[in-house]
Amino acid sequence: MTMEPPAASAVPYRRPEDCPRARTRLYREGVCLSENFPVADITGHLADPASVVWLDLCRPTPADFAMLDKEFGLHELAVEDALDEAQRPKIDRYPTHLFLSAYAVHLDPKGVRLDVGEVAVFITGQALITVRKDDQFDLGPLLARWDASPDLAVHGVAFLLHGLLDLLVDGHFDAVSQLDEGIEQLEDLLFDERRAQIEQVHRRSFQLRKNLVVLRRVVLPMREVLNTLLRRDLHTIDEAMVPYFQDVYDHVLRVTEWTESLRDLVATTVETNLTVQANRMNLIMKKVTSWAAIIAVPTAITGFYGQNLPYPGHGTGWGVWTSTALIAVVSGLLYLAFKRRDWL
Amino acid sequence: MTMEPPAASAVPYRRPEDCPRARTRLYREGVCLSENFPVADITGHLADPASVVWLDLCRPTPADFAMLDKEFGLHELAVEDALDEAQRPKIDRYPTHLFLSAYAVHLDPKGVRLDVGEVAVFITGQALITVRKDDQFDLGPLLARWDASPDLAVHGVAFLLHGLLDLLVDGHFDAVSQLDEGIEQLEDLLFDERRAQIEQVHRRSFQLRKNLVVLRRVVLPMREVLNTLLRRDLHTIDEAMVPYFQDVYDHVLRVTEWTESLRDLVATTVETNLTVQANRMNLIMKKVTSWAAIIAVPTAITGFYGQNLPYPGHGTGWGVWTSTALIAVVSGLLYLAFKRRDWL
Amino acid sequence: MTMEPPAASAVPYRRPEDCPRARTRLYREGVCLSENFPVADITGHLADPASVVWLDLCRPTPADFAMLDKEFGLHELAVEDALDEAQRPKIDRYPTHLFLSAYAVHLDPKGVRLDVGEVAVFITGQALITVRKDDQFDLGPLLARWDASPDLAVHGVAFLLHGLLDLLVDGHFDAVSQLDEGIEQLEDLLFDERRAQIEQVHRRSFQLRKNLVVLRRVVLPMREVLNTLLRRDLHTIDEAMVPYFQDVYDHVLRVTEWTESLRDLVATTVETNLTVQANRMNLIMKKVTSWAAIIAVPTAITGFYGQNLPYPGHGTGWGVWTSTALIAVVSGLLYLAFKRRDWL
Amino acid sequence: MTMEPPAASAVPYRRPEDCPRARTRLYREGVCLSENFPVADITGHLADPASVVWLDLCRPTPADFAMLDKEFGLHELAVEDALDEAQRPKIDRYPTHLFLSAYAVHLDPKGVRLDVGEVAVFITGQALITVRKDDQFDLGPLLARWDASPDLAVHGVAFLLHGLLDLLVDGHFDAVSQLDEGIEQLEDLLFDERRAQIEQVHRRSFQLRKNLVVLRRVVLPMREVLNTLLRRDLHTIDEAMVPYFQDVYDHVLRVTEWTESLRDLVATTVETNLTVQANRMNLIMKKVTSWAAIIAVPTAITGFYGQNLPYPGHGTGWGVWTSTALIAVVSGLLYLAFKRRDWL
Amino acid sequence: MTMEPPAASAVPYRRPEDCPRARTRLYREGVCLSENFPVADITGHLADPASVVWLDLCRPTPADFAMLDKEFGLHELAVEDALDEAQRPKIDRYPTHLFLSAYAVHLDPKGVRLDVGEVAVFITGQALITVRKDDQFDLGPLLARWDASPDLAVHGVAFLLHGLLDLLVDGHFDAVSQLDEGIEQLEDLLFDERRAQIEQVHRRSFQLRKNLVVLRRVVLPMREVLNTLLRRDLHTIDEAMVPYFQDVYDHVLRVTEWTESLRDLVATTVETNLTVQANRMNLIMKKVTSWAAIIAVPTAITGFYGQNLPYPGHGTGWGVWTSTALIAVVSGLLYLAFKRRDWL
Repeated sequence: MTMEPPAASAVPYRRPEDCPRARTRLYREGVCLSENFPVADITGHLADPASVVWLDLCRPTPADFAMLDKEFGLHELAVEDALDEAQRPKIDRYPTHLFLSAYAVHLDPKGVRLDVGEVAVFITGQALITVRKDDQFDLGPLLARWDASPDLAVHGVAFLLHGLLDLLVDGHFDAVSQLDEGIEQLEDLLFDERRAQIEQVHRRSFQLRKNLVVLRRVVLPMREVLNTLLRRDLHTIDEAMVPYFQDVYDHVLRVTEWTESLRDLVATTVETNLTVQANRMNLIMKKVTSWAAIIAVPTAITGFYGQNLPYPGHGTGWGVWTSTALIAVVSGLLYLAFKRRDWL
Repeated sequence: MTMEPPAASAVPYRRPEDCPRARTRLYREGVCLSENFPVADITGHLADPASVVWLDLCRPTPADFAMLDKEFGLHELAVEDALDEAQRPKIDRYPTHLFLSAYAVHLDPKGVRLDVGEVAVFITGQALITVRKDDQFDLGPLLARWDASPDLAVHGVAFLLHGLLDLLVDGHFDAVSQLDEGIEQLEDLLFDERRAQIEQVHRRSFQLRKNLVVLRRVVLPMREVLNTLLRRDLHTIDEAMVPYFQDVYDHVLRVTEWTESLRDLVATTVETNLTVQANRMNLIMKKVTSWAAIIAVPTAITGFYGQNLPYPGHGTGWGVWTSTALIAVVSGLLYLAFKRRDWL
Repeated sequence: MTMEPPAASAVPYRRPEDCPRARTRLYREGVCLSENFPVADITGHLADPASVVWLDLCRPTPADFAMLDKEFGLHELAVEDALDEAQRPKIDRYPTHLFLSAYAVHLDPKGVRLDVGEVAVFITGQALITVRKDDQFDLGPLLARWDASPDLAVHGVAFLLHGLLDLLVDGHFDAVSQLDEGIEQLEDLLFDERRAQIEQVHRRSFQLRKNLVVLRRVVLPMREVLNTLLRRDLHTIDEAMVPYFQDVYDHVLRVTEWTESLRDLVATTVETNLTVQANRMNLIMKKVTSWAAIIAVPTAITGFYGQNLPYPGHGTGWGVWTSTALIAVVSGLLYLAFKRRDWL
Repeated sequence: MTMEPPAASAVPYRRPEDCPRARTRLYREGVCLSENFPVADITGHLADPASVVWLDLCRPTPADFAMLDKEFGLHELAVEDALDEAQRPKIDRYPTHLFLSAYAVHLDPKGVRLDVGEVAVFITGQALITVRKDDQFDLGPLLARWDASPDLAVHGVAFLLHGLLDLLVDGHFDAVSQLDEGIEQLEDLLFDERRAQIEQVHRRSFQLRKNLVVLRRVVLPMREVLNTLLRRDLHTIDEAMVPYFQDVYDHVLRVTEWTESLRDLVATTVETNLTVQANRMNLIMKKVTSWAAIIAVPTAITGFYGQNLPYPGHGTGWGVWTSTALIAVVSGLLYLAFKRRDWL
Repeated sequence: MTMEPPAASAVPYRRPEDCPRARTRLYREGVCLSENFPVADITGHLADPASVVWLDLCRPTPADFAMLDKEFGLHELAVEDALDEAQRPKIDRYPTHLFLSAYAVHLDPKGVRLDVGEVAVFITGQALITVRKDDQFDLGPLLARWDASPDLAVHGVAFLLHGLLDLLVDGHFDAVSQLDEGIEQLEDLLFDERRAQIEQVHRRSFQLRKNLVVLRRVVLPMREVLNTLLRRDLHTIDEAMVPYFQDVYDHVLRVTEWTESLRDLVATTVETNLTVQANRMNLIMKKVTSWAAIIAVPTAITGFYGQNLPYPGHGTGWGVWTSTALIAVVSGLLYLAFKRRDWL
């Protein structure tokens, strides 16, 4: 993919046609004037200081950034971070722009696989550039959210950023809420003695804990990100947008606290599981002992009567009765004794 | 449900008639002048700057808020939070009012189910608006508490708010106190060896821990809420009310510390339970071994005398005596040996 | 009990006669002038600004406070706290006085029961009022301590307060020191295999941990209490008394750190206990296996020779020898094999 | 090894010849002018204030430092720290220079052995002196990194320092990433029941945890080191280099957070392993019980028919059928009963 | 022991003669002028403001302090702390002097017993007074250390204090290093299955953890002590000594971090031990089951052929072969089946 210099934009930027995921939008005074125009037109649009531009790049190459650099003066390190894998949520201030990194999370309906997709964001006075490493984070809901609150659109870049962060944090919320449900289901399994269920408890609690660890890594630093946004005097955030970002911050706090209490809850579940299993083991052992004792009785008695010795009753009818009676009585007494001690 | 604009209040606001849970109160100079008047009258009452109004909405709809908005200028985000589920205890400052969210908790007498019900509160200079998602939080005790301290009523909105928070935190106190009792009962079960009791320990300690996790989530952020109330110069709180809010803050600290030490205590109980079970297992195993060894003796001896071989004493009377004596003596010696080693 | 207004003290305050635990003391310029005078005389004594009064109330009623209120102007909330159960150690500042709550702890010699008794204290410029819910906290040592350092008595209320706090913290120290000893004893039991000892370990470690949890709740907030006393410019504390309060603070820190390290130690003990038990279980299981195998051998061999079949040696003398030799040799070999693998 | 005084540098410093690991570099105005020149030439080069020198010493002796001391005025304590073993990552400020200590880490491909090698660094206005205790930390990649960003070389010592720290932190990153992979592999083994696999889980999880502990010790204090570098106004760091050091700091944070979440993850794995094993134990015990019961049946029945008594069917054909039928039916019923209870 | 008033020092202070452990030293302008002179001479020496005196008291009595008090004006509370047992590391500021408490630790070569001995220090402008409760802390190395760095002696009391603290912290370092080695040895034992070894693991890990708890209590507060020394403007510490105290502080941090990571490591070891044991238990149980099943086969078969019934082959030669073949084949098949499932 090549990118024409914006000055001589004879050949339009072809990305939008090639890849349906590259998107643009132009806002002026709170109105969305144009959508999916060529990237090369951005320079022209930005000439009007009242214009605000959104540009989304999906799986960009260093060459893409080389062109943007001319227009926006993006810092080399921020570009590197946008291209790299495995960033953590953070916000960096550069002379001409902010760089923000956040994560979209998605938990499959079974609660097993937690996918995280990074969204890197460049924030300048007139533009919001989102960079996605893959298309895990669908742009549809973002556009819908922007379109749903046209009254805020006059706030320009801050409005765009708020919509994005709100959406991402709502996603975190959904994930933690699904995990909470997963723990509820786990609890129901906890006192179930069926073998398949017990193994489910192991696997599910392991997945839950693993997903909580991953989610935590994505969610916790978001507090710092929003704190920084709210603390620093950014020219892109109007006073009127502050409560909206404060609201996102509140959501982040709720997700964080929820995640922490889920960690507690799943630890409680796992420990309960351990004690429940230890108890089952004890019950089984008691049963083993009891039945082993009861069954050992006829063996010992018939052993006695099987000796090749002239013991009392040897070869006689009343010997049969004695032997059988002994077996019945002693086994029966043992059974009752164990039953009373609650071992059977 | 429709709400007439307060300006043209020809048709009185019908909510109080429809739903007995919607309540209003009017205070002037520390005296409760009127109760359960129509919502539409609020505008008139508030014209007098010495008036203070309380309005309670139970399960309100967005339409209810639309009307209130005209009178109080409630912020869109605060209204959203009041309508949403699963807020966390928090306090937000908006230009014209404060928004506070807290939780009423209720533990059923058996200590199994912990219900939490959110109470959202809008605080303006002249009004306190409480919003309840359901009627779990009964208003009766709140009204009683207000009526019980008429001397404080001159402090207006701060007086109303204090009564509410005091009541909620007392509820937290009751819950944590009930959980403490539950742990005491658990301790009594801890060294009980009966099977039903042991299973009780598992279930109860699991419920206790789960309830503690939930309670903690509701209680911990209350520290921050009261800290903010005490720190910020709210025009609604007179200097004379500060010790009263400080007192509520003290209660919150006590509940928090108590909750934390209960977590410690229940963890101690659970771990003790685990070691106690491990020990019981050891005792059972020792018993199994001992009895298995004792019972194996007659089997081995009668096996010998049951061989179709001319062993010494085969088919003779003294063989019977030898066999029986061997069984008695060896079994007896083993029994004594195990008894001395404390295995039986 | 009625209390005459102090102005017209015709009828002397009878409390000291009724209840021997109500005490008073009058200090002037470092000298204890009078003891156990009627409560009604306090007003007269306090007229001299050089006088310092100590008043102790044991199990007071709201009526007692009603009278004191006239003299000292105690805040309604502080009085409520002094009458309530289950305060936490804290210090509150009111316009005319300080309110302090601390705990006397007492561990019975066996280290099983930890009793905590609250002492509520009102501190004014000229008076120290101690309130005890019960007589668990004996006043004898407090009076002795005050009498033992007459040189400090010129510092008035600060001197009285220091004596009290020093005594309480020394009590915390004794309790934590006793618990430390209890853990030492536990360690000696840890590797003891006798059944009674093992059960002792469970019960004792549970009690220790529980007592540590309770002690911690009483001790930890004391840091904050003394910090506040040292930070705030109280008119009742002379500069010369600061090192003495600093000293109490040091003791509180020592108790706190000690408590924390005991928690660590008892956790270590409990976990060691768990591994030791798991190991014992393994040893027992190995023994069970070994003996079961050894005993199964004669059973199998005599079973063979007990068949009603013309096997080699059937009914012959050398059959007896073969059978017996087989039993002895195979059992012996197995015994040696297990012995070498360290299973027996 | 002797070091000529730099003033009379007739005999060239021979270290570079003796030990190929001793290196030097000279930069002027962003250009690397010379490499591996004799140490004795440093004084001459530093006379030009535009020169920046890098000196690497591998396994230096106190004598080496004695000479450097004349030129650089290194503080006695910093030199001691550079010669000592087992420093922790730290940064110390001395009047004429900074002293920094950091660690190169290397995990062997199997993830078993984590080697850490200290790199001590002296930072002056014109020179960066690296000291390595051994050659575990290879200089090759460092030189390559410096050469790869010639545009930054104008920033002198800060450029050299950034290259070094960036490389070290990237090494930490690689190690933690390898450990992450190791945990993934562990998870796959977790539900595998083969004996060799189970023992692998033990050994691997132990190594992983141990390596995490070591890595943590090396990584955590790096936060403080970079914080200090960024906070203090060092004359060696140009404003333009700040984002680059900030970038390294971000990487340190990522490594730290990753390490912490791996600790969580490996703890989860170990605990899951414990519950999985407890469950396997239960399953085995159930099987033991079941088969023991089933096998005890023929023994008891044939014992009865082996008695030397005229029991019904003694010595008759239908006795054979009765006995065999009894064995088959009772054993079969037991088998079905256990199967239905999921014990087999 | 009596102490003459220093003014009329006719009778020399006899302590040095009685107890060889009481020591004195006189420094002037960095030179040690005199050693072990009588305590009574101190007053004369201190008359010269350039003199610096060191006095060591071993097991002093209150009477000793009574005399010192005249000369140094030691605060009553500091003296009490110096005489008391079980201080924690701390530093207190009094008007005329500082009081510091630190601990010498010593671990016996086997790593079993950790002895801690308190050293109390009074620091005035011209004197350093060390007080030892017992002679566990040998003065020899301290004197040697002072004599080894004569260049620092000009810094007077700060030099003496640095030597002492450096020595104590080096002792902490040695102890933690020995414990580290102990953990390494523990790891080697971890996968050893011999019974004696397993019990070693229990005892050693328990001792290690206990020693770590004690060491932590002694080491952690040292951070605060050195922080205070470095923060406060003490007249006894020259600017030039600051890096040296900073160096001690660094060592304290290293010891602290090392201690913390050892806690982690030993916890890891103990938990690994638990899982390893659980696994051994599983292996043993599988073996028990397998052999029990194999041995039950001949018992059941010979039981059948031992019945007094005309079963097929009763009393015939081919009956012997059938029985023996059945035993061999079924047992063999079972053995192979278990072998393939990895149970044997």
